[in-house]
Amino acid sequence: MVQRIDLNCDMGESFGAYTIGSDEKLLESVTSANIACGAHAGDPTVMDRTIRLAKEHNVSIGAHPGFPDIAGFGRRMIDFSPDEIYRMIVHQIGSLQAFCKVHGVQMQHVKPHGAMYNLAARNHDAADAVARAVYDINAELVLFGLAGSELLTAGRKLGLTVASEVFADRTYQADGSLTPRGRVDAMINDVDYAVQQVERMLNEGVVRTVNGGSVDIEADTICIHGDGKHAISFVEKLRAMLERAGIVVSSIGD
Amino acid sequence: MVQRIDLNCDMGESFGAYTIGSDEKLLESVTSANIACGAHAGDPTVMDRTIRLAKEHNVSIGAHPGFPDIAGFGRRMIDFSPDEIYRMIVHQIGSLQAFCKVHGVQMQHVKPHGAMYNLAARNHDAADAVARAVYDINAELVLFGLAGSELLTAGRKLGLTVASEVFADRTYQADGSLTPRGRVDAMINDVDYAVQQVERMLNEGVVRTVNGGSVDIEADTICIHGDGKHAISFVEKLRAMLERAGIVVSSIGD
Amino acid sequence: MVQRIDLNCDMGESFGAYTIGSDEKLLESVTSANIACGAHAGDPTVMDRTIRLAKEHNVSIGAHPGFPDIAGFGRRMIDFSPDEIYRMIVHQIGSLQAFCKVHGVQMQHVKPHGAMYNLAARNHDAADAVARAVYDINAELVLFGLAGSELLTAGRKLGLTVASEVFADRTYQADGSLTPRGRVDAMINDVDYAVQQVERMLNEGVVRTVNGGSVDIEADTICIHGDGKHAISFVEKLRAMLERAGIVVSSIGD
Amino acid sequence: MVQRIDLNCDMGESFGAYTIGSDEKLLESVTSANIACGAHAGDPTVMDRTIRLAKEHNVSIGAHPGFPDIAGFGRRMIDFSPDEIYRMIVHQIGSLQAFCKVHGVQMQHVKPHGAMYNLAARNHDAADAVARAVYDINAELVLFGLAGSELLTAGRKLGLTVASEVFADRTYQADGSLTPRGRVDAMINDVDYAVQQVERMLNEGVVRTVNGGSVDIEADTICIHGDGKHAISFVEKLRAMLERAGIVVSSIGD
Repeated sequence: MVQRIDLNCDMGESFGAYTIGSDEKLLESVTSANIACGAHAGDPTVMDRTIRLAKEHNVSIGAHPGFPDIAGFGRRMIDFSPDEIYRMIVHQIGSLQAFCKVHGVQMQHVKPHGAMYNLAARNHDAADAVARAVYDINAELVLFGLAGSELLTAGRKLGLTVASEVFADRTYQADGSLTPRGRVDAMINDVDYAVQQVERMLNEGVVRTVNGGSVDIEADTICIHGDGKHAISFVEKLRAMLERAGIVVSSIGD
Repeated sequence: MVQRIDLNCDMGESFGAYTIGSDEKLLESVTSANIACGAHAGDPTVMDRTIRLAKEHNVSIGAHPGFPDIAGFGRRMIDFSPDEIYRMIVHQIGSLQAFCKVHGVQMQHVKPHGAMYNLAARNHDAADAVARAVYDINAELVLFGLAGSELLTAGRKLGLTVASEVFADRTYQADGSLTPRGRVDAMINDVDYAVQQVERMLNEGVVRTVNGGSVDIEADTICIHGDGKHAISFVEKLRAMLERAGIVVSSIGD
Repeated sequence: MVQRIDLNCDMGESFGAYTIGSDEKLLESVTSANIACGAHAGDPTVMDRTIRLAKEHNVSIGAHPGFPDIAGFGRRMIDFSPDEIYRMIVHQIGSLQAFCKVHGVQMQHVKPHGAMYNLAARNHDAADAVARAVYDINAELVLFGLAGSELLTAGRKLGLTVASEVFADRTYQADGSLTPRGRVDAMINDVDYAVQQVERMLNEGVVRTVNGGSVDIEADTICIHGDGKHAISFVEKLRAMLERAGIVVSSIGD
Repeated sequence: MVQRIDLNCDMGESFGAYTIGSDEKLLESVTSANIACGAHAGDPTVMDRTIRLAKEHNVSIGAHPGFPDIAGFGRRMIDFSPDEIYRMIVHQIGSLQAFCKVHGVQMQHVKPHGAMYNLAARNHDAADAVARAVYDINAELVLFGLAGSELLTAGRKLGLTVASEVFADRTYQADGSLTPRGRVDAMINDVDYAVQQVERMLNEGVVRTVNGGSVDIEADTICIHGDGKHAISFVEKLRAMLERAGIVVSSIGD
């Protein structure tokens, strides 16, 4: 049976005179673009340009809502209620949808950003708020979330199509969670090993853990990091090696 | 022939802990609500609540986009290009549309705010940018603008339905423009005279000017100011007296 | 022995077109004004006007730094590090100091706002960051904090003069903490009882607790709430009755 | 007679997760740093770090106030009154002064940014507002402005020390103004020619103009651009060649 995987990357996170990421270059390798909506990053000009670029590269478009906190890039935990989270997501997806409309493209998915992503991964009420916002705006949208997270559970319960997100360049712990970034064994820098990790996820449905065991995992989409010096060479190699291994790299909807 | 007029009012301009306006009370008298989209005023919580209230009062809902400048309440002129204006309107209408979707209501119209309204009234390129943004998002939306303005011309050229906005409580100059607020004869405080002004607009298609003449004017909707001590009593009296004069007060779409 | 108490109130929390509080009226009754610095509330125009008004009313001026979060009015917990808190306080006190300079007045004190106040009351590292920022800018400033809090301990350790803040209109629990606002017995609406509570604090160094006991408390300054319908009549009565009880109402520095 | 020139550069314009400029590298070549104050760019963490770096490199520190508009990087014209400009400068200089205090350094100068710089160069009232704000906060501060501008006239009138800013890499028009950037002959890319231009300013008090004439100009400080691919190599060469030409490169206060 043919194995398929999506490669998703955060995009459109520049802001005014400030540039972050190498969107145009990354769009040559990824299959799904998570586009910031002007709350944790991005602005109307950046959103417009990023959608146009994604369309030109035939990359699937998703909304990437985050906490309204450009100064903190949406990475700081802020004490929002589930109702506030629901409403900020409605607001953000709506604004990106309008750009999709004027560019004549469909929005495929939604992936929350940073602190919102982490909160929705472990907190039931936040997960439910995110999933309901997506469902209420457009029940056809695919909800991206951490494999095994509360967010995916909440999405499935509402009948949303969900995509389990995994990491090729991060190690996993015995309980299936990611090894925290501070730890020396958190990152995988060897592209060969990263590809093996993805192959094992797809073929065996498991991932090796840092303590030598393995744990079940679903893998629909790989999170590609757009920052870092080697971001572009990493994703180019990763994609090439996945395809060499017979894995079809394509967006969720294809 | 039955004369009809719409009463529109800016709404949803509170922000976080800050309250402006008496939205709930005003919704009892007006027929169209122009709802701020979080750029010059408003936030997702306020947008959500205002749409719910407008729906409950059966008042038509419109987007009220403005310059992204909460500190200046969208009243300060900022040097934006027409392209930037186009994109900020796409962003803002989109976010309000999403709240309409989750509340199961239709958006009826768009009326720009403050400095954006004034710029689009007199500047061809800005007017064209506003009108195109509205058209590209949803060609069924009604575009509200100052009677006789560049904005309405731009909207008509694209095939949009437009609504000519007039003022019951402001005087007009010989060229059809509003007497600037600083002038002693700018405001009409007498409700009887305000109603007469509206009647004359509807029956004769003209408005008396401060120099004693009269000038042609179209009148589809009256701008109701929500602030000021007497805002609510003014609109209540105005509506009652318009109805007594046999003028049907109803939203544009009815 | 003469008992003295300071009455402090948050001020200058309006923002652009948005007005909060009745600063001018309250300045007739309070002795210390905590002036927002443009981060959780306020802006340069509001800061300037509030300092001018406080000077005219001969009310002592303090900085009221808060989390940089106007949308949340500084009330939301945001995950800032102690170093970030130190720097935001330096920034905010500095900006208010400059307005003091151009108005020819001295800054007397610093009182943190909202979530920052609560965090610094219970968290040692945050308390230390706040106290160090105040000390490093001007070791003569008086640090206001919740009576019995970590913040006052941190201030004293650095050699700062501190002022213990108490509440006339809130009840206390057995451990000396305030009864949470959600509880039915949290508020004291009877001004007579509020004055008795303050008298007992000053004369006996204790406060009655909701469970019928009493607990030690120091009282240098009373927090006056500027919002609420009865804010002004409450502070007017409170001040009159304190003075009738022979308590001198004056600012900390007097 | 020994000729002296200052090299000044905008710094501290990063913001949160967004980085702009190569501050640390540029500090090796310039003699005055204009540090953003969190309004058009910068934040408390960036201000703190930039002052520490400038101190380590023994570079003179100045405030770089701008319009409060991070989304537009302070480059967009916004319709502020002179009073508003006065207050935003008080606020911004004050906040930077506090960081100077905690780092134990003196602030040397103030140079307005972007749209504020351009407005104060040609508009008398804006120039007066900027100069008064600087004077009222600290009459010892040096005011940097475009050579021949209204801003320097306003500063001199108040008794401030002013520094005439010139450009090594820009051409001048017959009236002494800079050739607009859009023009093909606006920029000087040849470092030799740039140094000749500066030498002529210092030795003869004139600058050649694009139409072949020359015009009087005072030159106290050269504006170094921190962005652009060749920013660092340009300033390194410029400084080396100025020193080779016998010109002392040192800050205004030295």
